[in-house]
Amino acid sequence: MMPPNQTPSLLQILGTRLPLIQAGMIWCSGWELASAVSMAGGLGTLGAGSMRPEELRRQLERMREVCDRPFAVNLPLLYPQIEDHLGLLAEFQVPVVITSAGSPSKWTSYLHEKGCKVLHVVSSTRFAVKAQEAGVDAVIAEGFEAGGHNGREETTTLCLVPSVRNAIDVPLVAAGGIGSGEAIAAALMLGADGVQIGSRYVATPESSAHPSFKAKVLSAHEGDTHLALKGLTPVRLLDNSFARHVKAAETRGDGLEDLRELLGRGRAKKGMFEGDLEEGELEIGQVSAHLDELIPAGALTNQLWEDALQRLETLSQLQVLRRNPA
Amino acid sequence: MMPPNQTPSLLQILGTRLPLIQAGMIWCSGWELASAVSMAGGLGTLGAGSMRPEELRRQLERMREVCDRPFAVNLPLLYPQIEDHLGLLAEFQVPVVITSAGSPSKWTSYLHEKGCKVLHVVSSTRFAVKAQEAGVDAVIAEGFEAGGHNGREETTTLCLVPSVRNAIDVPLVAAGGIGSGEAIAAALMLGADGVQIGSRYVATPESSAHPSFKAKVLSAHEGDTHLALKGLTPVRLLDNSFARHVKAAETRGDGLEDLRELLGRGRAKKGMFEGDLEEGELEIGQVSAHLDELIPAGALTNQLWEDALQRLETLSQLQVLRRNPA
Repeated sequence: MMPPNQTPSLLQILGTRLPLIQAGMIWCSGWELASAVSMAGGLGTLGAGSMRPEELRRQLERMREVCDRPFAVNLPLLYPQIEDHLGLLAEFQVPVVITSAGSPSKWTSYLHEKGCKVLHVVSSTRFAVKAQEAGVDAVIAEGFEAGGHNGREETTTLCLVPSVRNAIDVPLVAAGGIGSGEAIAAALMLGADGVQIGSRYVATPESSAHPSFKAKVLSAHEGDTHLALKGLTPVRLLDNSFARHVKAAETRGDGLEDLRELLGRGRAKKGMFEGDLEEGELEIGQVSAHLDELIPAGALTNQLWEDALQRLETLSQLQVLRRNPA
Repeated sequence: MMPPNQTPSLLQILGTRLPLIQAGMIWCSGWELASAVSMAGGLGTLGAGSMRPEELRRQLERMREVCDRPFAVNLPLLYPQIEDHLGLLAEFQVPVVITSAGSPSKWTSYLHEKGCKVLHVVSSTRFAVKAQEAGVDAVIAEGFEAGGHNGREETTTLCLVPSVRNAIDVPLVAAGGIGSGEAIAAALMLGADGVQIGSRYVATPESSAHPSFKAKVLSAHEGDTHLALKGLTPVRLLDNSFARHVKAAETRGDGLEDLRELLGRGRAKKGMFEGDLEEGELEIGQVSAHLDELIPAGALTNQLWEDALQRLETLSQLQVLRRNPA
């Protein structure tokens, strides 16, 4: 039993051993990845934003077959068939729902009634406060360096997390730019109770990203991703022919309709799932510059946390941190 | 004596008690600020980029009168009268020179011959490696969230610092987005040996920023700064009429010459030193969103470090960091 008025901890909310969430990423995070992370003690997440209801049902059935630990589904709140998805989350008693890209005020209490915990992803302190007001169990604050959809303020994780920490009382998860034990330790220093990690999990055997996209992620260098479509909905993309077309259209000052036309349909699927590295949309974070091998997701989950603990322990012995007389 | 082949530590290079550098900022960091930081145990820095040689001489004379501890001068390597400035650094035996905005290969050995330690500011891992090759004593890696001049890759401090740490052997200083003990602790987790702090020191009684600019910095909110002039030389500015003019010119696709014309001369002085908050250029980092009071620079220096130590100590007691059985 919780003492009255005490906020549950992040681990209590997630029901996991580790405060480490694998981000739900369109086209990259199906049941193979999510179950591997959850079985290792983290929170694996299905990325429902790229699934039709029948596909989400199939994924949830597989998930329930292979994984008896808590897991999550990421649900972009602007998803067109959202009521079908919500019905599935209730039917399968999904333990944790991570909402994003929309207002959490409409569906949070519905999800609570169905027994789901709700985390909401924000890119600003203002939205974090709104999410808390909407009753979410925890907030995920995601900085500018993150892959995929992103905030207009361009606030980095280093600046966003302490600000959100000061503004809310519920547990806080840091996201964006985190793909190593050092970065996890840094996020904890900033006041986060845990972390959400995306790009690092794209480069696993279990991710459903196309092998060509995984190879491209592993070969990415510093400066190879940029925030595009700032006028429409900002998204961090790996440089390629498609990203250059988008940039040229923005530089020309093309209107929103022209940009939507250029985007067309299925660009993300074409790039990340079908492996068209030039004409497809490749969403990935700045962390991609640090990756040079695929690592199985379960081993990765344990290694990331172990590295973080070791970093915290090592640092306490550094000479520079002894209190010297003035 | 150093053992042979052992890299000197950052504190040995700086000669200070604390691994904390106050950034040299044009129009904001004269002898009042730099001496207060150095006397408190950090490394105060004169921002020579906005000083003519006769003004730098006057500043160095005052510095030598009031401060018997190590200090630095920041020298943008594209400064037009750089040889006059270099002569002054030698004449006054400036202990530490922080070079930026240019290649460190040309002047590092000259400065070493004059007895100065040399730190160079970079925004990318590639430039960090070049700086080490040029023989600098330490590297300052500055992320996207920093105020003022900035890199084209837009790599954030969280992603830049670990990457630079892996690529170089000399001591590493993290910069950009650091203005609190939490952020210092995070930077150390990422592998930095120390930190450079800029924006937080603008909001001190001792900074030479105009009182109106200081007040505007204190009232800034999240999302109020943006990276401008990406095609010319990227710089993070606080939103105002001038920044909007620059943005409109960039959106129109104005050429570099038109942008230079718009910039004109003296925009930074007009904004930061003379207090013209609308037509002047106001350089500040994302950290500005967190600031709500002026704090004397010496007390601030000690408080920042004390907060960082406390954060490191507190975190080691957190429940989440205990090693749990799987």
